[in-house]
Amino acid sequence: MSVSVSLTDSRARVGVWLIGARGSVATTAVAGCAAVTAGLHAPVGMVTETPPFAETGLPALSSLVFGGHDTLDCPLPKRAEALAAGGVLPHGLPAAIAAELAAADRGIRPGGPLPGDTRGPEELIETFAADIRDFARHHGLTRTVVVNVASTEPVADGSGLPPSSLYAAAALRAGCPYVNFTPSTGLHHPALTDLAASSGLPYAGRDGKTGQTLLRSVLGPMFAQRALAVRAWSGTNLLGGGDGAALADPAAAAAKNAGKERVLTDTLGTTPEGETHIDDVPALGDWKTAWDHVTFDGFLGTRMTLQTTWQGCDSALAAPLVLDLARLTARAHEAGLTGPLAGLAFYFKDPVGDAPSSLGAQYEALTGFAQRLRTTPEAGRAEGAR
Amino acid sequence: MSVSVSLTDSRARVGVWLIGARGSVATTAVAGCAAVTAGLHAPVGMVTETPPFAETGLPALSSLVFGGHDTLDCPLPKRAEALAAGGVLPHGLPAAIAAELAAADRGIRPGGPLPGDTRGPEELIETFAADIRDFARHHGLTRTVVVNVASTEPVADGSGLPPSSLYAAAALRAGCPYVNFTPSTGLHHPALTDLAASSGLPYAGRDGKTGQTLLRSVLGPMFAQRALAVRAWSGTNLLGGGDGAALADPAAAAAKNAGKERVLTDTLGTTPEGETHIDDVPALGDWKTAWDHVTFDGFLGTRMTLQTTWQGCDSALAAPLVLDLARLTARAHEAGLTGPLAGLAFYFKDPVGDAPSSLGAQYEALTGFAQRLRTTPEAGRAEGAR
Amino acid sequence: MSVSVSLTDSRARVGVWLIGARGSVATTAVAGCAAVTAGLHAPVGMVTETPPFAETGLPALSSLVFGGHDTLDCPLPKRAEALAAGGVLPHGLPAAIAAELAAADRGIRPGGPLPGDTRGPEELIETFAADIRDFARHHGLTRTVVVNVASTEPVADGSGLPPSSLYAAAALRAGCPYVNFTPSTGLHHPALTDLAASSGLPYAGRDGKTGQTLLRSVLGPMFAQRALAVRAWSGTNLLGGGDGAALADPAAAAAKNAGKERVLTDTLGTTPEGETHIDDVPALGDWKTAWDHVTFDGFLGTRMTLQTTWQGCDSALAAPLVLDLARLTARAHEAGLTGPLAGLAFYFKDPVGDAPSSLGAQYEALTGFAQRLRTTPEAGRAEGAR
Amino acid sequence: MSVSVSLTDSRARVGVWLIGARGSVATTAVAGCAAVTAGLHAPVGMVTETPPFAETGLPALSSLVFGGHDTLDCPLPKRAEALAAGGVLPHGLPAAIAAELAAADRGIRPGGPLPGDTRGPEELIETFAADIRDFARHHGLTRTVVVNVASTEPVADGSGLPPSSLYAAAALRAGCPYVNFTPSTGLHHPALTDLAASSGLPYAGRDGKTGQTLLRSVLGPMFAQRALAVRAWSGTNLLGGGDGAALADPAAAAAKNAGKERVLTDTLGTTPEGETHIDDVPALGDWKTAWDHVTFDGFLGTRMTLQTTWQGCDSALAAPLVLDLARLTARAHEAGLTGPLAGLAFYFKDPVGDAPSSLGAQYEALTGFAQRLRTTPEAGRAEGAR
Repeated sequence: MSVSVSLTDSRARVGVWLIGARGSVATTAVAGCAAVTAGLHAPVGMVTETPPFAETGLPALSSLVFGGHDTLDCPLPKRAEALAAGGVLPHGLPAAIAAELAAADRGIRPGGPLPGDTRGPEELIETFAADIRDFARHHGLTRTVVVNVASTEPVADGSGLPPSSLYAAAALRAGCPYVNFTPSTGLHHPALTDLAASSGLPYAGRDGKTGQTLLRSVLGPMFAQRALAVRAWSGTNLLGGGDGAALADPAAAAAKNAGKERVLTDTLGTTPEGETHIDDVPALGDWKTAWDHVTFDGFLGTRMTLQTTWQGCDSALAAPLVLDLARLTARAHEAGLTGPLAGLAFYFKDPVGDAPSSLGAQYEALTGFAQRLRTTPEAGRAEGAR
Repeated sequence: MSVSVSLTDSRARVGVWLIGARGSVATTAVAGCAAVTAGLHAPVGMVTETPPFAETGLPALSSLVFGGHDTLDCPLPKRAEALAAGGVLPHGLPAAIAAELAAADRGIRPGGPLPGDTRGPEELIETFAADIRDFARHHGLTRTVVVNVASTEPVADGSGLPPSSLYAAAALRAGCPYVNFTPSTGLHHPALTDLAASSGLPYAGRDGKTGQTLLRSVLGPMFAQRALAVRAWSGTNLLGGGDGAALADPAAAAAKNAGKERVLTDTLGTTPEGETHIDDVPALGDWKTAWDHVTFDGFLGTRMTLQTTWQGCDSALAAPLVLDLARLTARAHEAGLTGPLAGLAFYFKDPVGDAPSSLGAQYEALTGFAQRLRTTPEAGRAEGAR
Repeated sequence: MSVSVSLTDSRARVGVWLIGARGSVATTAVAGCAAVTAGLHAPVGMVTETPPFAETGLPALSSLVFGGHDTLDCPLPKRAEALAAGGVLPHGLPAAIAAELAAADRGIRPGGPLPGDTRGPEELIETFAADIRDFARHHGLTRTVVVNVASTEPVADGSGLPPSSLYAAAALRAGCPYVNFTPSTGLHHPALTDLAASSGLPYAGRDGKTGQTLLRSVLGPMFAQRALAVRAWSGTNLLGGGDGAALADPAAAAAKNAGKERVLTDTLGTTPEGETHIDDVPALGDWKTAWDHVTFDGFLGTRMTLQTTWQGCDSALAAPLVLDLARLTARAHEAGLTGPLAGLAFYFKDPVGDAPSSLGAQYEALTGFAQRLRTTPEAGRAEGAR
Repeated sequence: MSVSVSLTDSRARVGVWLIGARGSVATTAVAGCAAVTAGLHAPVGMVTETPPFAETGLPALSSLVFGGHDTLDCPLPKRAEALAAGGVLPHGLPAAIAAELAAADRGIRPGGPLPGDTRGPEELIETFAADIRDFARHHGLTRTVVVNVASTEPVADGSGLPPSSLYAAAALRAGCPYVNFTPSTGLHHPALTDLAASSGLPYAGRDGKTGQTLLRSVLGPMFAQRALAVRAWSGTNLLGGGDGAALADPAAAAAKNAGKERVLTDTLGTTPEGETHIDDVPALGDWKTAWDHVTFDGFLGTRMTLQTTWQGCDSALAAPLVLDLARLTARAHEAGLTGPLAGLAFYFKDPVGDAPSSLGAQYEALTGFAQRLRTTPEAGRAEGAR
């Protein structure tokens, strides 16, 4: 089988089209893919590189080709240097993979709409879709997955499609699977529901879980399984970088917090007291700290507490998951899967489809999904046999 | 089916024989069983009172009769008052259930050997077994489960059976299922291996997980499933009460820590750097604080940390699990199960039999065990049908 | 000297008039004063009972007589039972000091204005002042200190005197020293400035520091003295009880947070990034948890962090300070001190007068203040000499 | 006055002789001195660069010349690169100050005794003293301060002088002021007491406080001043680097912990329950994490807790203090001060001389010391006037 995988890999190149392609997460994903491919780093944090995903026909990291949309114009190599200065990327890495960064940079097209842009939704969607199609044609790609890693946008006010939904519509129009790694609306817009359903494309999301919610998705089930009564669950997130600033907007934070609290309600079977704050602390740069405080009752009403403090680098947590998702969704598309990919709930705060909410159950669903891919012929190989 | 359950309950009384019957855990279990039976408190912390355990033929809480061994002679009602003063039991509860405490107190026989005791192992085992048989006969019990909740004893030095093993041997001799809620040797002694195997009795253990290890059994799998590389896992436990003093003995702590670290090795697939301390802090009384510090690598070697602080009342965490285990093991005995009950691994740091190490998988095994009980005729009912 | 102190004590009874007299802090102060007087508890948390305050002529605890205003009507003995149930007061204490609680309860008069109250400011002030004068006359008090321990009120909108200022004006009118233990306006109202200045009365405040700000007042100076550059200081307070609900109102929280942040600015010499949240978590009852996260730069820009978690019982922290302040302010009045008592800055987030901001310097100022009292003749004694 | 200071600076060069000259702290001190002198970084963490130390005649950073002893032979530029890779020094700094690192490297002489060394104590002391004198002569130094920043050595067993004391004796013999930044014995050896007294040299130490003990020296006084009863104070230190390995030796840790606990006893006036652990966690590199857990009683016995977590880079915390101490001790020598410099207690866990234990009081003593320096003629200037 390894031979045919190798054949597939050598022939098939898969596009990863990133919305927010000049952001920290996108830059780290591009840089990390190159670093791992070159053998400079182990694939720590990439679930698809662990044994349960062997022989599932996923596209090789070396076969991924990056491009995307962004409204900024800071070149990727420069962005990577800034990330290295902030300790997100290893020093020396940007220089070592300068060619790959430059290549991805050439694949980035202007996003929108920016203030003053007079183009209507239809024109924007068409422009974006054309960009994606050009990219695929130019590189001779078998397929392209569109992944939204842009800053969280404010909750849509209902009047028309928000930008994330314009990009999602463009993905469908270009015939591309779609992954929403952010809490932004994306495909979750009433105006896109029918389109998504009729497109025959697989899609996944929403809002990658990389820290506090990841913890909650294992701690919530623990309390529930032990029949301990959670009375209050309070949390504070401190984060700098662009994300901190974006989420300092209460409207944007509302979208994010809804996901965080949903995990608690779903795993505990009740909504505890307590709030979740997101603070913009520019001094933290790309690092974030999440503090959680849980008040629970034990036997006979005895009051107890659990506190957790998670200190992580958001981009380094998100980027390997973005690569995982691009590979899994590309392979799902190849395998003919359509609609919401509930098997990928492991990655999200607010998963599409009918999915369990505890991380353990989500992991089982994910390995089941991998098993399903393993037993599904690769389209490429099947076609090759004709 | 509820009719036959009711029939069973009304006829069968089940003994719970506690080694360390005057300790905090035992006193809380006796008091809590009475409080829940009387409707004074909800059964928070009792897993067997949650929906997956409905209709599994477990003995009702009201059918449990308590007795046990202890080397101390503080009366249970007085012990309960001391626990109420320390905030472990609700104020007023000891008075409200004075009759039940007094009844359990009458069921407690002297343990041993105390310094100066000239009885040999065989005599001690026979005395203990006779105590248990007398108890069962006196109360007309269908069966009696022996549960070790005594203070942790130092690691056996090999010369003869340690006290916990004498009690375990007595349980077998009296024909009783055995549960070891502590890290002491109990049935895990080479001299008892054959005896345990040939007894035809079910048994469970070892070392209830109620705090730090409970957390580790959900956090370890999280890191593994996310392919994050744990570099170091350090921990400090502060605890007062008798447990703190017992575990200040490095030999006793060694037994406990082995269990704590095994969970990490089993769930992570590697043994991280770091130590685990157990400090005796008498000022904490029955409360304990466990701090864990995890250093892990994310994508491209980025260093991150997780810290947890668990502040709980050990007795209030352990007591409902002791009641769970007494009920489940009694029902397993009734259902004809024998040998190590790996299905109860959910409760233990160092489970008997072949069991998974992540809490999620252990919970699934436990609910599977419950399902098996549900579909096994109750011995009492079967007899009643004859 | 001890003889004359004893003479003073035996003749002089001092009133403590509490605004918010049925609240947790007031009830704990009344109960604690009785408990310490009766020798049931050591005076832990009372700074005035430590050696630097010996022989300073402070009124004895046994000489204090309590009364006050409140808009609620729950009797103090019942309130004390509720606090004992919540673990704030020791079980059994309310019964042991039932007489003292009942006596204080008889001294409480209705506060205001409640919704629908048609009385104007002048009428309210006159009523409150009359209540205080009646109290002093009835008990034959040498002097009475008015202490505001009511729930924090929203920031005044400018239109007229807020309730806390009505009470403060009443204190002045009744010729009583005034202490504001809350962040409410009280005497800090432009309309009262001249009145306060011309009254010849001493006053102190504002906003007792009992947890997070107490910590900040020692940690801020530590960073400054070590020349470490604090970049961000973020905090979250979780608190239940009435205080949590009151401060869930952003307007009330604003007053409190201003004090918290002022301490940082004053001790650090700069205002760091970061927000401070106050969350209402009713499940915590009278307990509060304050988490602080400090990001600072060390040598050559190395990024470091300090986190603190303070878990305390607000009423138990505040009550002994209220007794301290009542005694110190009464003695200052006796000693003829007038105007803002900057020497009491040790107790407050936002101290009156010209006071240092580090706790160490404030403690020195406080012991200097005590020394000044020690060398000032007691008015009572002086009169007795006539 | 600035003119004469400038005259002094231009003529006087001051030596800093580091025991452990190739370690992390020494390398960071050398690199940091060069970086600040070159204007590449602000002097964050250097207390002597704050306003209270202006015009006190301290040697300029640019006048410091570095040398020292070490038993290792890794070149300083290479050591600096390793520190940059570990995030202790900024990337790019080693290259920017390559000349200064090379110059200091040339000033380092072999330490000892290494295993197999047959030289006796007298020979070693003489060799070390000759090294220091050669260094001073070679560079034409006005004076040289010897500072011990080597790894902590095990507690001396009494048989002869430990290495740290050999170096201290060599400092005295070479006529140099001595600073012990470690908990090792150094001058605190009975055999050196008379020598130190008769030498007429100033000396300072012992054991720089850079994290947990720094915190304790402000938190201990806070509890004492507020009359809160500390029941237990427990701590765990996780540290990698050479220090972690050295302190994993219980004998070495004992020396360090004695200092940590002395601060508590001195500031609280009592010794609380609780232990302090030092764990070697190589994965942490030069970073350390210190967790403290304080259990205290408030009013009426209410139990409360404070936890702190300090995450710092040990070398970055220590290095600026080493520069401070070298400057202050050199200036004290110039000003004719002799014997233990109690005014520098601010820097140490276990200060020499008669010094207060709270950081606030120590800071006052330090600024008083600075004032004394300010008003003492500079030897250089005095000579210049002749």
